[in-house]
Amino acid sequence: MMRGIIPPIVTPLRSRDELDVEGLERLVQHVLAGGVHGIFILGTTGEAPGLSYRLRRELIERTCRLVAGRVPVLVGITDTAFVEAVHMAQFAAESGAQALVLAPPYYFPNSQPELLEYVQHLAPELPLPLFLYNMPTHTKTIFEVETVRRAMDMPNIVGLKDSSANMVYFHQLIRLLPQRPQWSLLVGPEELLAESVLLGGHGGVCGGANLRPRLYVDLYEAAHARDFEHAAALHAEVIHLSTTLYRVGRHSSAIIKGLKCALRELGICDDFMAEPFHRFREEERERVRKVLAELKITA
Amino acid sequence: MMRGIIPPIVTPLRSRDELDVEGLERLVQHVLAGGVHGIFILGTTGEAPGLSYRLRRELIERTCRLVAGRVPVLVGITDTAFVEAVHMAQFAAESGAQALVLAPPYYFPNSQPELLEYVQHLAPELPLPLFLYNMPTHTKTIFEVETVRRAMDMPNIVGLKDSSANMVYFHQLIRLLPQRPQWSLLVGPEELLAESVLLGGHGGVCGGANLRPRLYVDLYEAAHARDFEHAAALHAEVIHLSTTLYRVGRHSSAIIKGLKCALRELGICDDFMAEPFHRFREEERERVRKVLAELKITA
Amino acid sequence: MMRGIIPPIVTPLRSRDELDVEGLERLVQHVLAGGVHGIFILGTTGEAPGLSYRLRRELIERTCRLVAGRVPVLVGITDTAFVEAVHMAQFAAESGAQALVLAPPYYFPNSQPELLEYVQHLAPELPLPLFLYNMPTHTKTIFEVETVRRAMDMPNIVGLKDSSANMVYFHQLIRLLPQRPQWSLLVGPEELLAESVLLGGHGGVCGGANLRPRLYVDLYEAAHARDFEHAAALHAEVIHLSTTLYRVGRHSSAIIKGLKCALRELGICDDFMAEPFHRFREEERERVRKVLAELKITA
Amino acid sequence: MMRGIIPPIVTPLRSRDELDVEGLERLVQHVLAGGVHGIFILGTTGEAPGLSYRLRRELIERTCRLVAGRVPVLVGITDTAFVEAVHMAQFAAESGAQALVLAPPYYFPNSQPELLEYVQHLAPELPLPLFLYNMPTHTKTIFEVETVRRAMDMPNIVGLKDSSANMVYFHQLIRLLPQRPQWSLLVGPEELLAESVLLGGHGGVCGGANLRPRLYVDLYEAAHARDFEHAAALHAEVIHLSTTLYRVGRHSSAIIKGLKCALRELGICDDFMAEPFHRFREEERERVRKVLAELKITA
Repeated sequence: MMRGIIPPIVTPLRSRDELDVEGLERLVQHVLAGGVHGIFILGTTGEAPGLSYRLRRELIERTCRLVAGRVPVLVGITDTAFVEAVHMAQFAAESGAQALVLAPPYYFPNSQPELLEYVQHLAPELPLPLFLYNMPTHTKTIFEVETVRRAMDMPNIVGLKDSSANMVYFHQLIRLLPQRPQWSLLVGPEELLAESVLLGGHGGVCGGANLRPRLYVDLYEAAHARDFEHAAALHAEVIHLSTTLYRVGRHSSAIIKGLKCALRELGICDDFMAEPFHRFREEERERVRKVLAELKITA
Repeated sequence: MMRGIIPPIVTPLRSRDELDVEGLERLVQHVLAGGVHGIFILGTTGEAPGLSYRLRRELIERTCRLVAGRVPVLVGITDTAFVEAVHMAQFAAESGAQALVLAPPYYFPNSQPELLEYVQHLAPELPLPLFLYNMPTHTKTIFEVETVRRAMDMPNIVGLKDSSANMVYFHQLIRLLPQRPQWSLLVGPEELLAESVLLGGHGGVCGGANLRPRLYVDLYEAAHARDFEHAAALHAEVIHLSTTLYRVGRHSSAIIKGLKCALRELGICDDFMAEPFHRFREEERERVRKVLAELKITA
Repeated sequence: MMRGIIPPIVTPLRSRDELDVEGLERLVQHVLAGGVHGIFILGTTGEAPGLSYRLRRELIERTCRLVAGRVPVLVGITDTAFVEAVHMAQFAAESGAQALVLAPPYYFPNSQPELLEYVQHLAPELPLPLFLYNMPTHTKTIFEVETVRRAMDMPNIVGLKDSSANMVYFHQLIRLLPQRPQWSLLVGPEELLAESVLLGGHGGVCGGANLRPRLYVDLYEAAHARDFEHAAALHAEVIHLSTTLYRVGRHSSAIIKGLKCALRELGICDDFMAEPFHRFREEERERVRKVLAELKITA
Repeated sequence: MMRGIIPPIVTPLRSRDELDVEGLERLVQHVLAGGVHGIFILGTTGEAPGLSYRLRRELIERTCRLVAGRVPVLVGITDTAFVEAVHMAQFAAESGAQALVLAPPYYFPNSQPELLEYVQHLAPELPLPLFLYNMPTHTKTIFEVETVRRAMDMPNIVGLKDSSANMVYFHQLIRLLPQRPQWSLLVGPEELLAESVLLGGHGGVCGGANLRPRLYVDLYEAAHARDFEHAAALHAEVIHLSTTLYRVGRHSSAIIKGLKCALRELGICDDFMAEPFHRFREEERERVRKVLAELKITA
């Protein structure tokens, strides 16, 4: 049963198709030191779809070895090709990962019956427990509430991460939980961590936890413990970070670019990015530095 | 310089991750017998994103061998991972393909500057001429007119296939052609073949040409020769096919399902589909049979 | 300074263009008895754009007379025509209303500079304080955060109602509040009332408060008082109502239809609707009756 | 039976809520001199939703008087309020108009059954023949093919204007025509006039015909007469105008702004616009002047 903060870690890169191995070590060490409850690799923040399969496997292998069982490692296997998703899942299991994460196949638009069947066909082929991943801005297809309800019937589907930023939807999912009390309902956007945990969610897959793992862990714990005043204060810090760091760039890639740039400034890892994205230039870096100073973030 | 009808062929499958080898032979023979000017594999109609990389390579190799230089083979290399697109392009070149086709990377939303840079970085790494592929319903990102204009500066980008179904956009692209008279501007939706060729386009990548290659070749030639009455009559046949066969299913997958089902009924190839899609059931098959009879389509 | 629960009341109709005058009296009495802090007429729930201008004026006049100053009456003046919005505002002021509510003009897509200018030109012409109304599903245009920040400079713009259901956006607006401490930030979707008030919002414009005004008032007060356990319990009731009553119909009109049908069942007002909508038929009415029984809602 | 070019005329304004009466006279004279087959007032190009009802009535009355039966006058009655649409239709009939034009009510999203019922309820209340108007970018709701087929059963619905720019859809509508041979199928975007008339459409409601009525009339006649070479040459002129004049501004309002600015430069009418839009400033005016010179457009 997954609870708490599971950072979707960025994939440190040294150049095209080359992992920043030392950066990965420092990053894993950094988030573990912050008390996180798991690590999620090969998600959206990890630029997974932009990485070669070879690099994805290298990342799985090294991360599992680095984490060494201290927390669960969740591996994104989202793929447009069913067979490739299964292969990646098998590799993850062999490497020692604990769970898998799957968004809908994202090239073709899927109807809900097609999506449900897809999940029903895929889940039995997987060697590890599976989290569904709702990410409509990128996949075009939502996991509708009724589809989630039906997917809950499958024993090795153990939770869902919702990155839709739609809390009306999230509250509808919370109402399904009595059907599977051990399920994990996690929220993606860190701006919604406080309210989702206060009102029945189980934690967050927060990009900002790459940078300040302790802040998100503390917020989770305060919300979970119903220490409302503390939660509200930490929530305000999260919103402050979000409305400054993630607004440095102009495009929707600005969140990942901002995170990678900040991690470089802290000396944690390289900020090289997979195509079609590119690291911030000096002008944006200077603004990131100012944000880090204003937020008093140091390594 | 590519002109005419280039069917985006379906990928005949026998089961999950197994090519229907005999079906592929019959299909290639069928479309070549219809006089097509090229064959496009691994496009949307070919369910490319749903196929394993192994099967994609098998398909490239076998198709190039079957076609044996009689017409150009175009290979879709669209991928979310830059490195994988390059690998597939190299494999296509080694297998004897003549050109490549690339839609935008389709997981992350791309801004136009990011998309242009992506194309500018990728094209020089490719061993074959490249066609851009505008397919916004599936990739979320459009190749804006100004981006196409800039991409025309790259010598090994030789054309664009537009599946947006937006003829206002298409006419704007036609106005760019004097800049590169050898460019090929091809239209995706077969319903727009007549008008696009009449008004300056160079041909079509028409799904229906899997089934009735001669119809589309005749229409192209009539439109190209300004034999307007003949073109209009053939256009009406295309619209008839499109408004019956492609409307058998309910979801947006109905076009590929209808094509595969019809090809099976004609004894050309299997109608197994890659996840998340599944072949029509008996009820829809019966309706497809009626459509084929009504349209007098036989193998 | 507006705080608390302001129900967006339905417009009771007896037939096309005929107000259900007795129904309106009972409805106003019903929500006032529930302790609401204001009444909002001519919003989306009030089907304002579907009503004739004559009926809108009749509704304004009667409601102001019925409320008789016990709570503020807010009047929606959203219109595609600037001049008509000004006229309705003048009529509202003459009738004794306290404030106005304005969504973007909703036929033409508006750019943000155009929207800001529109608000800057309109606000000075209005005889009453104005609330902005963010409702992108219906108006296509969002009030972006920067536009709101600029609009806050206008003295007679006194708040914003956000019906986007996007709490990331809402938290960004909360961060603007120190600029105008007297501003009111209200949330539309009742499913978000608890979290928005807990984390800095000032209340809700909740459709369900037509039916159960006391529930929403209690929830607002519990959240405002930081009585977290009570708030969570009432929030669960709201979600229960929302996931049952509002899901009886199939289309997006289901929320208003469900509310009107329930109010009819309680004997409060007629459920006639303005075109293009129509009241539930017997089948759906029966389901609404079951929901009311399950939720133990009686007049 | 409506055939040919029906310009959707701009509404000349002198200031907020004040018609430019002399400008309207010159504009009507200008388009009639160009040989147009009808005049459409109060459409999107006419900024109808942005005008007061008083001004809309003044425009109807004056235009009908100016045209004096020389060509049919079509009046847009699109409204979010059923009752107001009926009132405007009655006023148009009394003023001597020949037909009405109606897009879906555009605040609430409509389902297709709701939209069909709306049309079925409204048409019998109207004193004049009705054209449907498909304009999904502004109304959010499309008239689906099946809905149009059902609407064709109503005797006083006599045609449809399609501004979706989706020619696949348009060809599907053409296939419905044998059901009602007297129906008129008109296209909105002028870039699609040539192909739509060549392949079975009946004419165009072209914004550019405000400026160069003769160009569009000639194109319509060439396409209708199957004089293909002439049609293609005139089509190229239309695309040239569209890709220059309509691209002067940055927002989607640029088309109307460009038209009004050009009409002012030609001395035909004022370029004042209804909120939320505003005339071009000197910088854009200078670019419009250059476009007019390049296109050799003079009054």
